[in-house]
Amino acid sequence: MATKLTPRAEDYSQRYNDLVKNADLAENSSVRWCMVIKPYWYAIWENIRDVLDAMFKATGHQNAYFPLFIPKSFFSKEASHVEGFAKECAVVTHYRLKNGENGEGIIVDPDAKLEEELIVRPTSETIIWDSYRNWIKSHRDLPLLINQWANVVRWEMRTRLFLRSAEFLWQEWHTAHATAEEADEEARRMLNVYSDFVRNFMAIFHYKGEKPEHEKFAWAVKTYTFEPMMQDFKALQAWTSHNLGQNFAKAFDVKFTNKNNELEYVYATSWGVSTRLMWWLIMSHSDDNGLVLPPALAPIHVVIIPIAKTEEDQKEILNALAPTLDELKKSKLTINSEFLWEYNIPYKVKIDDDNQKTPGWKFNERELKGVPVRIAIGKRDLDQGQVEIFRRDTMEKQFVKLEDLTNEIKKILKEIQENLYIKHMNFTKEHTYTADTYEELKEKVEKGFVLAHWDWTKETAMKVQDELKATIRCLPFDWEIKEGIDPVSWKPSARRVIYAKSY
Amino acid sequence: MATKLTPRAEDYSQRYNDLVKNADLAENSSVRWCMVIKPYWYAIWENIRDVLDAMFKATGHQNAYFPLFIPKSFFSKEASHVEGFAKECAVVTHYRLKNGENGEGIIVDPDAKLEEELIVRPTSETIIWDSYRNWIKSHRDLPLLINQWANVVRWEMRTRLFLRSAEFLWQEWHTAHATAEEADEEARRMLNVYSDFVRNFMAIFHYKGEKPEHEKFAWAVKTYTFEPMMQDFKALQAWTSHNLGQNFAKAFDVKFTNKNNELEYVYATSWGVSTRLMWWLIMSHSDDNGLVLPPALAPIHVVIIPIAKTEEDQKEILNALAPTLDELKKSKLTINSEFLWEYNIPYKVKIDDDNQKTPGWKFNERELKGVPVRIAIGKRDLDQGQVEIFRRDTMEKQFVKLEDLTNEIKKILKEIQENLYIKHMNFTKEHTYTADTYEELKEKVEKGFVLAHWDWTKETAMKVQDELKATIRCLPFDWEIKEGIDPVSWKPSARRVIYAKSY
Repeated sequence: MATKLTPRAEDYSQRYNDLVKNADLAENSSVRWCMVIKPYWYAIWENIRDVLDAMFKATGHQNAYFPLFIPKSFFSKEASHVEGFAKECAVVTHYRLKNGENGEGIIVDPDAKLEEELIVRPTSETIIWDSYRNWIKSHRDLPLLINQWANVVRWEMRTRLFLRSAEFLWQEWHTAHATAEEADEEARRMLNVYSDFVRNFMAIFHYKGEKPEHEKFAWAVKTYTFEPMMQDFKALQAWTSHNLGQNFAKAFDVKFTNKNNELEYVYATSWGVSTRLMWWLIMSHSDDNGLVLPPALAPIHVVIIPIAKTEEDQKEILNALAPTLDELKKSKLTINSEFLWEYNIPYKVKIDDDNQKTPGWKFNERELKGVPVRIAIGKRDLDQGQVEIFRRDTMEKQFVKLEDLTNEIKKILKEIQENLYIKHMNFTKEHTYTADTYEELKEKVEKGFVLAHWDWTKETAMKVQDELKATIRCLPFDWEIKEGIDPVSWKPSARRVIYAKSY
Repeated sequence: MATKLTPRAEDYSQRYNDLVKNADLAENSSVRWCMVIKPYWYAIWENIRDVLDAMFKATGHQNAYFPLFIPKSFFSKEASHVEGFAKECAVVTHYRLKNGENGEGIIVDPDAKLEEELIVRPTSETIIWDSYRNWIKSHRDLPLLINQWANVVRWEMRTRLFLRSAEFLWQEWHTAHATAEEADEEARRMLNVYSDFVRNFMAIFHYKGEKPEHEKFAWAVKTYTFEPMMQDFKALQAWTSHNLGQNFAKAFDVKFTNKNNELEYVYATSWGVSTRLMWWLIMSHSDDNGLVLPPALAPIHVVIIPIAKTEEDQKEILNALAPTLDELKKSKLTINSEFLWEYNIPYKVKIDDDNQKTPGWKFNERELKGVPVRIAIGKRDLDQGQVEIFRRDTMEKQFVKLEDLTNEIKKILKEIQENLYIKHMNFTKEHTYTADTYEELKEKVEKGFVLAHWDWTKETAMKVQDELKATIRCLPFDWEIKEGIDPVSWKPSARRVIYAKSY
């Protein structure tokens, strides 16, 4: 709390670190590479999980749980596909600790060596498809629509809280289908599900689209993505969904009897989101005063700070607010969504009556933590039947009559949710350009997303990547498809794609 | 489904294995020692988690997330306390796989050896208290009431689905307090929270109490427990809560400045429940036809099985049931609870209109899976404006007029929830005895719980354990405290305790 935030303009990365630390979101643990997710931030992750989970279930999916460990041999298929295969992951080799005999303290018991090493899952498809092979016999067993919420470990060398850490939390879907069409439909449906979530809950604007051939997941027939713009104009690939065709089924040898009684490989999709979403949430909405949270995901909607000199005053103030609290308890914040229709969230109000801290300190702390609405009320306000209400997104204050307070809170929370989205949309659109020459592309990709023609070759994409440090983020769905000329190669192009720098 | 269940009387353990397999709850994975929790069973775990989590939050607790890995050195404190220390756990020694150079396939990269081995958490107190040391400075930072939902790994040699497996899911609480009284209050409060859950959601009767000195957790000042009776009359220690006094704080060196401005060690509690609860749920309510699930935790409340010869008939039947489904959607199953007051659960109805399977097959499957209510309706029933309604707990069928159906479903679900508890309570009480001689104790402990006097010595408890294979499960709260004579040693006793055989 004492430390100031580094201004965004000065050092965007440092500011992110300051925010995570000062807003008490997360910290590095004694185990290098692993983080501790602190309660405030974990509450946001729980809200994310609950909404997504409701969306998954509304679209007919089920959760299950698969083992943390994967036998080493399961990775051999992947290794045979990948030149210079190297997998950074946690390897379990032994299963017992004991006291050393020569007083050297605790040692790993050399007699407790595993016959085959186990890998802490970096992702679960190998172990999940190993089960699917036994579960899927006939088209009647399909589709199989299973999700897992789990922790995974990838031994990242350069860690950064939430963006990259060895262990992180995520959900991973692995579905199996009887036809190629069904699999593609599923991958596209889930793109829309996540997009609905990101639009209506995270309040983040984004371009939906398809990855170009050379950027898609190695196993995928098609990779769908959406790419939001961060405040430093970079793209973040926060989420992808993969239509895997029969590639997984061939690798894991999963066949089924189709309706014509023929043996066929299963069609698959996969996708997932991780605690990285939280990084994205910070980077999209925060300002120089700290976090700004959309009410749909905020752990606290309203903080009430009584400003009282005596205990009696404080009691009187809190009594005057009691009817508002009662009214809020009887009603819900409703978020409209395509897949959940109406999602109702209880109003979460925190009364901060800790008299060890000054009102000023509390104001700062709650601003830093992005609480959408703050209500301050002193004895004089009370005598005038009013309170001061502050909204975090615009930093505006106004006085409201006590009898109007409930309605005002409800109205403002709705407004903030929508305003954050509009703000992010406007910001993104302002920094989305078209470029028709290489010079234009070079100049504009420094300050935003650039829609430019592309000749559909990896060579051109690589030239831009090498020279401008920008990549093709996606072939956007919502952009007119019209022929033109590639500004890099001057060859014909079927359509514009989005180029951007990225994390 | 094809396999029959082994009758309980014949082989209780085998019957449990049959149930888990045939009801499609879980299976062993390719990784020996680890299980796959299948969707139906995982849905029950989610219901358990959601209710408990609501209770934790209602009593002022927060969730956070700590690392999966713990440095080996963190176990040295424990090792120095435990004679012949041996910890069966998963040890991570390396962080990279690669292709071997001599064509031997994938190998663990010998250059990627960790300086200090990491242990996959068997429980998290060492890593959590390592953070607490930094978080707690003053009495103003207390109480710290934190819970974690996580996977943990203990390298059990003899595994059994849910009861013992290397990896399992659980929640673990670790709280820190400024006074001894507060810590004990917390440990007792949580005993009551879990008891509320077990009574009102799991519908299981149990004796609450305190563990005798020699049975308590090594670090604890007091260990609270409750012990339910399984169908084979054995006790299961499904849950304990520990008042740890200052023992943890001393081990992890966590001090705070108290109100008198003196440096003092923090007072702690800890407790948790795991996927073992699900084993307990199976063992308490199931019968020879399969699972019996309390509606408060069942993934499906009502299954509707239309019995139609033509598609037209099926359509007509489902149309006739539509008003019932609409009415159920507008209302909730309310479970009354001490800590949640009223917990509302949406009615979960499944229409099983898969015409690949016969009604008889479906009836069996849903009985096996413990769905509380089944509705069967054919064309002839429809013409008479009625349906057949079957309740799983009593296996009774009755005909109900269509217009009464919604109310009847609601009424029956409430009845089942309460009936299961009463049934389990009656069963337990019928098999709870008092014994005043060693002969009586010996005879009765074979068929239930035995309340007997105890002279408060470990020697006596050990004699009973050696000779009768029974242990003191707890010093029950709800039993008259009256002096008497220990039937084993013939020495004076302050009160009766519960002896039982156990898992």
